[in-house]
Amino acid sequence: MDRFECDYAEGAHPKIMEALMKTNFEQSPGYCTDSHCALARKLIQEACSDEEAHVYFVAGGTQANVCVISALLRSFQGCVCVESGHINVHEAGAVEATGHKVLALKGEDGKLQAETLDSYLTSFWADLNTEHMVQPGMVYISSPTEIGTVYSKSELEALYRVCQKFAIPLYLDGARMSYGLNAEGSDLTLKDIDQLTDVFYIGGTKVGALFGEAIVFTRGNGLDRNFRTVIKQHCAMTAKGRLLGVQFETLFTGGLYNEIGAHAVKAAMRIRDALKAKGCRALADSPTNQQFWYLPRAYRDALLPDFAFECEGDVGQEEFLVRFCTSWATTDESVDRLIKAIEAL
Amino acid sequence: MDRFECDYAEGAHPKIMEALMKTNFEQSPGYCTDSHCALARKLIQEACSDEEAHVYFVAGGTQANVCVISALLRSFQGCVCVESGHINVHEAGAVEATGHKVLALKGEDGKLQAETLDSYLTSFWADLNTEHMVQPGMVYISSPTEIGTVYSKSELEALYRVCQKFAIPLYLDGARMSYGLNAEGSDLTLKDIDQLTDVFYIGGTKVGALFGEAIVFTRGNGLDRNFRTVIKQHCAMTAKGRLLGVQFETLFTGGLYNEIGAHAVKAAMRIRDALKAKGCRALADSPTNQQFWYLPRAYRDALLPDFAFECEGDVGQEEFLVRFCTSWATTDESVDRLIKAIEAL
Amino acid sequence: MDRFECDYAEGAHPKIMEALMKTNFEQSPGYCTDSHCALARKLIQEACSDEEAHVYFVAGGTQANVCVISALLRSFQGCVCVESGHINVHEAGAVEATGHKVLALKGEDGKLQAETLDSYLTSFWADLNTEHMVQPGMVYISSPTEIGTVYSKSELEALYRVCQKFAIPLYLDGARMSYGLNAEGSDLTLKDIDQLTDVFYIGGTKVGALFGEAIVFTRGNGLDRNFRTVIKQHCAMTAKGRLLGVQFETLFTGGLYNEIGAHAVKAAMRIRDALKAKGCRALADSPTNQQFWYLPRAYRDALLPDFAFECEGDVGQEEFLVRFCTSWATTDESVDRLIKAIEAL
Amino acid sequence: MDRFECDYAEGAHPKIMEALMKTNFEQSPGYCTDSHCALARKLIQEACSDEEAHVYFVAGGTQANVCVISALLRSFQGCVCVESGHINVHEAGAVEATGHKVLALKGEDGKLQAETLDSYLTSFWADLNTEHMVQPGMVYISSPTEIGTVYSKSELEALYRVCQKFAIPLYLDGARMSYGLNAEGSDLTLKDIDQLTDVFYIGGTKVGALFGEAIVFTRGNGLDRNFRTVIKQHCAMTAKGRLLGVQFETLFTGGLYNEIGAHAVKAAMRIRDALKAKGCRALADSPTNQQFWYLPRAYRDALLPDFAFECEGDVGQEEFLVRFCTSWATTDESVDRLIKAIEAL
Repeated sequence: MDRFECDYAEGAHPKIMEALMKTNFEQSPGYCTDSHCALARKLIQEACSDEEAHVYFVAGGTQANVCVISALLRSFQGCVCVESGHINVHEAGAVEATGHKVLALKGEDGKLQAETLDSYLTSFWADLNTEHMVQPGMVYISSPTEIGTVYSKSELEALYRVCQKFAIPLYLDGARMSYGLNAEGSDLTLKDIDQLTDVFYIGGTKVGALFGEAIVFTRGNGLDRNFRTVIKQHCAMTAKGRLLGVQFETLFTGGLYNEIGAHAVKAAMRIRDALKAKGCRALADSPTNQQFWYLPRAYRDALLPDFAFECEGDVGQEEFLVRFCTSWATTDESVDRLIKAIEAL
Repeated sequence: MDRFECDYAEGAHPKIMEALMKTNFEQSPGYCTDSHCALARKLIQEACSDEEAHVYFVAGGTQANVCVISALLRSFQGCVCVESGHINVHEAGAVEATGHKVLALKGEDGKLQAETLDSYLTSFWADLNTEHMVQPGMVYISSPTEIGTVYSKSELEALYRVCQKFAIPLYLDGARMSYGLNAEGSDLTLKDIDQLTDVFYIGGTKVGALFGEAIVFTRGNGLDRNFRTVIKQHCAMTAKGRLLGVQFETLFTGGLYNEIGAHAVKAAMRIRDALKAKGCRALADSPTNQQFWYLPRAYRDALLPDFAFECEGDVGQEEFLVRFCTSWATTDESVDRLIKAIEAL
Repeated sequence: MDRFECDYAEGAHPKIMEALMKTNFEQSPGYCTDSHCALARKLIQEACSDEEAHVYFVAGGTQANVCVISALLRSFQGCVCVESGHINVHEAGAVEATGHKVLALKGEDGKLQAETLDSYLTSFWADLNTEHMVQPGMVYISSPTEIGTVYSKSELEALYRVCQKFAIPLYLDGARMSYGLNAEGSDLTLKDIDQLTDVFYIGGTKVGALFGEAIVFTRGNGLDRNFRTVIKQHCAMTAKGRLLGVQFETLFTGGLYNEIGAHAVKAAMRIRDALKAKGCRALADSPTNQQFWYLPRAYRDALLPDFAFECEGDVGQEEFLVRFCTSWATTDESVDRLIKAIEAL
Repeated sequence: MDRFECDYAEGAHPKIMEALMKTNFEQSPGYCTDSHCALARKLIQEACSDEEAHVYFVAGGTQANVCVISALLRSFQGCVCVESGHINVHEAGAVEATGHKVLALKGEDGKLQAETLDSYLTSFWADLNTEHMVQPGMVYISSPTEIGTVYSKSELEALYRVCQKFAIPLYLDGARMSYGLNAEGSDLTLKDIDQLTDVFYIGGTKVGALFGEAIVFTRGNGLDRNFRTVIKQHCAMTAKGRLLGVQFETLFTGGLYNEIGAHAVKAAMRIRDALKAKGCRALADSPTNQQFWYLPRAYRDALLPDFAFECEGDVGQEEFLVRFCTSWATTDESVDRLIKAIEAL
């Protein structure tokens, strides 16, 4: 059985495991106040070309989202995102549990368009009932999105201009950031993201770490007031914090973070090409490690005995939406077998 | 200036003011534990033909909604309603402030269709990611709706059947209930509402009271566990609670509650007929005291000097969505003048 | 039966009822945007000698407390108060329901001492674990306190100095403010309170109104950002807001607010003197309308048939803590009868 | 430098690291639905002699506490604990952030006495103002406590009897459980804890794991309704959940969990005896791995250059409260050096 269900089926990239083994007996203070976290912060600042970036580590994506949103919003504010946004759908109401409404707008290919946002914010502030409504206090986007698409540099620039026009911070969820940075045709760099957002996080869990996300408040913007207390309050403070430091230190040394992304994207593109060649239809044009495609029932049934992949609901009678996902652990041989099977459909 | 902006522009119906004056020097225990509240509860039970109804009084609609929703839901649950539902739009995030997501579904003429609900609940429970999603824990509807439409008896029966199929309580927001009960062609009685919902509230603020809503937990269903503490916690406990008792006692004596509704509906129907005769177009077919119509700019401009009404946003260049609202305080003469002006457009 | 249980047993002071009757048919916009509210705000600014005060109206004390606390605190902050503080004991967790901890300190005679606060804040900020603790974000006091005592001007000055030293806002709950302003020997004026706090509220419900509290943000301090949305979100927005305006307009015209307080205090002092003469022991030295005294069982039993008063728990076998409360509605004859009965014990 | 600051300064016990390495390339479904978690659950059920125990894994103690408390309480309820309880002091308001008050009672040596609880619950339910107060909905205790003491079997029996008398669930925070189970003179077994509580958690983070706590709902009590959604909502769902499974599988195989506890306790007892012999005074009689002692300034200063330990605030001028902590990683040589230094004071 070759598995393409998700990008977090295995443990960690061998280099990370090695680093954890090597440092296992070191004694460090807890809660991310150790020297590994300090070095990892510095490496991330360098990768972002932002010496004034403030970097915090948490263990998972929901933690990152909840901490950032809770830190940025006042009680009367909500968080804007597209209807398909992770925080609106698959976090069990974690944002609402902190008292804030998710203000969902229509997206296009999983992305929030600058015009949609502009028009929403313009009408909101023009509405006579504004006082009785949840005030949009920040904007959440993800890139890659939940369906694998990525923002171009010009799209992000346009979005950030709207945010600045309305003085509302922009937050980018980068759970799978490396796959976006290394996507085919992507023109958006980590440095760009740092310049075009107020906060973002660099995902580790889905990019080769055991767990861990690095939250970056950009360019000394001061939005991270008491953020360590916010982290503690939202169950996101890791006692043995240096585990996060060691992992990000490793990911940002010698280009490992990009290497993992590039490897997975390459595998995903091969799968994409095979499906395209077979005449299948994609949910959206994803240049990243998540490939969402519609498969006829017969195709799906033929692949299921030998390959594991997500099958997201029954689209009508005869067609299924499936997801193939690659990661650092995906081998060429495994992809070869899948492609051969697709060609044989 | 004749005013049709809303149904809460004046104080209270004279009979209510009279009752408040008459009882002003009585001494009563606080927090709705007095004899007026007791009598009002009994009168409401009788009006609902439900001896086991548990009745509570709060001062306003947001209070009623927040208390009921907070009482019915567990932390991992959300409240289903239509996108245009009051709790989803105009309560400043009061529901989310209690930690619960509003799960918004498409409505039709402001109403939730039984099929929409059935299909949503069916897919929710079939979804493999259910554990990562907010569980629908109750259903909120309003009747009359935010745009003046009402549920028919068969619509409510169908909806309640779906709720019972999925063992999820149904809550009806009756801020303007009297206008629905007394709507032209409405076949839904208070007794029906009691039989076809688990909780509902009978609005007073918009039906002639100074303030006040009566929350009814139907047929001894036990959903009101510790509800008085819930009321206190959500800022909805009135110290001089007997003010609520006196008002509802008055509304439910001698048919005043229905009388007020019937009076306002009759006035609204006259306005509706005049607008229809003029060839105007309604937002939806409202048989109640709120009339939403599209008016050409010229019509709107002609009426504005002499009549006050809500003008809800600019629909394109040349047409406006306006609301005419009637109440116990709307006089025949005032309506006469408005109709004459419409005819003269 | 003469009743001394509480100061909200009756309706409203006759002048308020009269004003409500007189204005009943006026048509006003809702939600405190009407001309009565505007005038009441101006009268309160004048009474506080503070032209830059921002004044908001809500219906009850829990509403005032929750709205102010929610508006002032960030998610990682809590509200300091004494253990016996109303928000810590008798509001059903309304503050915690907004996500904030009440940080309870020891009080003295119901009051927070400047030294207690200074020492707490000093150690908090010196603690190495501060990041893992709830940050004190504001201070709550009440005057008169829950047991009837009042802050002197010098006590409030000392407290405010500590607050300013630690840059933390001070909020004063004035549910019974008039009884404090008119207390025997009190040297604290409304103007002082305005100068020595950042926010306070002037209680109406317990001082002759049907309901209503006026929240004052002092001296244009800007702490009331989006406060109307905060009010709506916490179920505290009154639809017929002008009811609040009319009541406070009346209370602050012709000295009625002080007149009510002075009347009730005078009655309370007569009761106090009688109990003292009888050799009874007070819980604390209360110069206001709430008199808490320990009564031997025999005394209590002798008074109960003819007088209503609160009996707060059984203090041992033979002594009870009771409360006698006076208000605008307490008559001289009623007090005469109580005093005669006390003397006859 | 020999370090005794805390029990989470290093990575994980070598057997755990080995197991993580060995399983690193296995592919598993996420979110604790894998076979390692399944086996770990079974091993824990066996260790508790409770086949009907429901076991869940989360990454840290705050997560365990917040998830359990949020799952057990209704919105109008709070959680009882002693003033020094971890949830009351050092979790940055994480419990209040879910909307619930922590109801703090006086403790004795860090423990909640059955009589204290009985008397509190008795008066609560006798209070006339109960409706205006936060209802005690559960009881939280920790064993070992925050200061190292442990409950005896009879103490826990007495406490549980009170909980059952008032039909209120008892939850035990076992962050350091192994040190309690293996404490000198402790008569409380894991099986006892399972029989005498409704929920508890078995701490891993502070007992040799990289991270991880196992929450146990005892004897099929049904209190864990939708607990996986609760976990997700509170940021406590680990994507690579099998990391938790692998670690607890290892801890509960071959007695490792007890072995770690016994090792650390033995070291701690040697330190305790040395301090006692020197005439020092303990904060409380701790038979576990945390030793809190008062040291004269001269002693503290003499030890500081060579040994790391926590120094919790300045107790007056000349005495300090310090903590020495041992763990699986504490070596005999390290303890020898500390003891020699103590003897030389």
